[in-house]
Amino acid sequence: MPSTLPDAPMPSDCPESDHPESECRGAGRRAVDRCDALAAFSEDPAVLDRPYLTASHRKALDLTREWMVEAGMAARLDPAGNLIGRYEGTDPGAAAVLIGSHIDTVRDAGRYDGAVGVMIGIECVEALHKAGRRLAFAVEVIAFGDEEGSRFPASMICSRVIATELSPNVLDLCAADGAPLRQALAAFGLDPERFGEARRRRDEVIAYVEAHIEQGPVLEAEDRAVGVVTGIAAQLRLKAVIRGRAGHAGTSPMGLRQDAMAAAAEAVLAVEEICSSGEPDLRGTVGRILPRTSAYNVIAGEVEIGIDLRAATRAARDAAADRLLHRLQDVCSARGVTLDFSVVQDLADTPCDARLMRMMDEAVEAVGVAPFRLLSGAGHDAIAVASLCPVAMLFVRCEGGVSHHADEAVRAEDVDVAIRTLSQFIDRLALDRARTGLETAA
Amino acid sequence: MPSTLPDAPMPSDCPESDHPESECRGAGRRAVDRCDALAAFSEDPAVLDRPYLTASHRKALDLTREWMVEAGMAARLDPAGNLIGRYEGTDPGAAAVLIGSHIDTVRDAGRYDGAVGVMIGIECVEALHKAGRRLAFAVEVIAFGDEEGSRFPASMICSRVIATELSPNVLDLCAADGAPLRQALAAFGLDPERFGEARRRRDEVIAYVEAHIEQGPVLEAEDRAVGVVTGIAAQLRLKAVIRGRAGHAGTSPMGLRQDAMAAAAEAVLAVEEICSSGEPDLRGTVGRILPRTSAYNVIAGEVEIGIDLRAATRAARDAAADRLLHRLQDVCSARGVTLDFSVVQDLADTPCDARLMRMMDEAVEAVGVAPFRLLSGAGHDAIAVASLCPVAMLFVRCEGGVSHHADEAVRAEDVDVAIRTLSQFIDRLALDRARTGLETAA
Repeated sequence: MPSTLPDAPMPSDCPESDHPESECRGAGRRAVDRCDALAAFSEDPAVLDRPYLTASHRKALDLTREWMVEAGMAARLDPAGNLIGRYEGTDPGAAAVLIGSHIDTVRDAGRYDGAVGVMIGIECVEALHKAGRRLAFAVEVIAFGDEEGSRFPASMICSRVIATELSPNVLDLCAADGAPLRQALAAFGLDPERFGEARRRRDEVIAYVEAHIEQGPVLEAEDRAVGVVTGIAAQLRLKAVIRGRAGHAGTSPMGLRQDAMAAAAEAVLAVEEICSSGEPDLRGTVGRILPRTSAYNVIAGEVEIGIDLRAATRAARDAAADRLLHRLQDVCSARGVTLDFSVVQDLADTPCDARLMRMMDEAVEAVGVAPFRLLSGAGHDAIAVASLCPVAMLFVRCEGGVSHHADEAVRAEDVDVAIRTLSQFIDRLALDRARTGLETAA
Repeated sequence: MPSTLPDAPMPSDCPESDHPESECRGAGRRAVDRCDALAAFSEDPAVLDRPYLTASHRKALDLTREWMVEAGMAARLDPAGNLIGRYEGTDPGAAAVLIGSHIDTVRDAGRYDGAVGVMIGIECVEALHKAGRRLAFAVEVIAFGDEEGSRFPASMICSRVIATELSPNVLDLCAADGAPLRQALAAFGLDPERFGEARRRRDEVIAYVEAHIEQGPVLEAEDRAVGVVTGIAAQLRLKAVIRGRAGHAGTSPMGLRQDAMAAAAEAVLAVEEICSSGEPDLRGTVGRILPRTSAYNVIAGEVEIGIDLRAATRAARDAAADRLLHRLQDVCSARGVTLDFSVVQDLADTPCDARLMRMMDEAVEAVGVAPFRLLSGAGHDAIAVASLCPVAMLFVRCEGGVSHHADEAVRAEDVDVAIRTLSQFIDRLALDRARTGLETAA
């Protein structure tokens, strides 16, 4: 699906009637209720903790499989433990549009991060199924087994394996309990030697779309149920080690100090200032601070800070990093302290497909919401799948931007808007596909 | 010794000849060498660690006692484990001038903190003894057993017990190894029931003078061998807990944050600015920072900082604390975060006696050094003894201001200047005493 194709026209036969408001409200409610039901499956009865290839993962898959089948899909577990429900198109075996997200959680998780995207996908298919509609393509709903990376020391294992050839070493990744992935797959009834066969061919897949809670406060602040994601931010983690001279808080006059804590404080504020005065999607955070000593009466001799910089593009992010480095060099030189600056992690941005974004805008508009776009600062399975096919994402408002916490909350009405938006989006994709097919045939 | 008495005149018969330069250089060298010899007595062969009532304390006492006796003193161990060498005056049993400091150390200590003050005292008496001089008062050199508080959870136990009535509960203080002070005293051969008898009567004591390494960088920066201490700073420890809202570093736009770390950074710089723009002896430090989380990708929801404020007077210190509180309230209110501000420790200032300070200035001048005064930001035994009698202190330059560290270093020439200064000071005290006695008789 080259991005040079013309925009899809607003479909005149837009099947809004398939999703009367009352029914869709029901769908949103049901999707939320299903996430709540899945929350019963946890490795820890006290908090939600559902890592990849565990007994709780199995239970979540079994129940989700039932819902997929009820919605008219054929469901299978792929060799990586991804649950895939397939709703055939008019032409059996046709390429598929994937609607996915993950079903694993972090420890002490909320109920909606990941799971709600899978449930939204199931509702979209259910609507097609009820209406007896088949499209020119298949629709597959994928519940990825691992996105969070909370069991093995790697994240998005399951979305990466469908999109790319992973090194066989991935099977040797060891969980905190010492079990390698290979062993965990076998214990789950999967053949580790076939793990790589989870990979999808490019010609099998048309596009990937993911609905996900925002995990941030923007949609709430903007009073929007949903937002169209422009891409996933480029991310840079920097470590700055500031070394001054330790000293006695009582005996060192202010003018004779080389206080690493004061320099670190200037660095924290410099990160904030530089990222507040630049482009709107620039974000900078110092959430990590490690003083070598931490005592009332000791002037800090060494302080390490961890800086997280994100922006829509790598270029914007790196420009901010450059400004920051120069500023910190000035701060440290003025204070007679030294600065050690190093890159800890460097992740490129993942832009969403421009044409899919426009279709998503139209779909949002079609359900009566003013389209609104925003960048995703957090990582999602879409990053991994982007190497397989064009990707789109829809964010759903969540309460207070809270995520990875039991207080994570989402409104059924908002989930409903998301289901209707994704249904509209699929219709637009079908129409576009039909037109493109005609054009290709012509 | 009321402070309303007139200043002592510059003595015309100042016995400089008792301390020819060459001999005094020898005295300074010997005092330093003796500190080095004491450093062999440590609970840990790898680092200097000589806490109160330990085997290493005993060995240090035994050797120090020998040096006291050589210097013409009668030495005794008081019921608290303080070693007291007494050099009688013309009138046996007369009130005494005390020259003291402590012989215990912190763990991983330097060799001179405390010990050099005791050795300086011994050299002063040695000079009197060699010259066959007796004064109108006795001179006692005290090696306090505990100042650092590194064994029991209280500091200056031994200087406090000579000056004031301690609660009998002090005997129940337990060391980290679980042994109460009572038991440690008994194991050291002391009778715990007699511990309080270490207390001195006011009429037994004329004044207390303590020489100590500066433990700060001021004398070095000013290029002075010694400095006259004006007093020991008033100290306030404040805890500020800043509570914002934790969030995801990637998903929270800069404008929608309540970042406790950024507020804490402003607080660190406010402490520095307020304490740099006020009076010269004002000092403020944030050496302690405790973020509730410390991760690259989490906006800090809560950060605690520990603030240490010191000034020459309680009033100056409290004025700074008030300014700081108002500033932090403004910072936190502007950021939409809350502030919890509490006092953790509040110590009053201990001014040195004005008349003794003037005598010390004269003594410094008499040995050919321009008098220089400075505040002590750190605590010393003089704080405790100040409730018994007027106190004076002399600081000796140390290298780089380093203390409580193996790198602690002091020059023999500087210690020599300190010995000569203290000898001059004692002579002035004798002259003053003689004159005051005459005046009283008249």
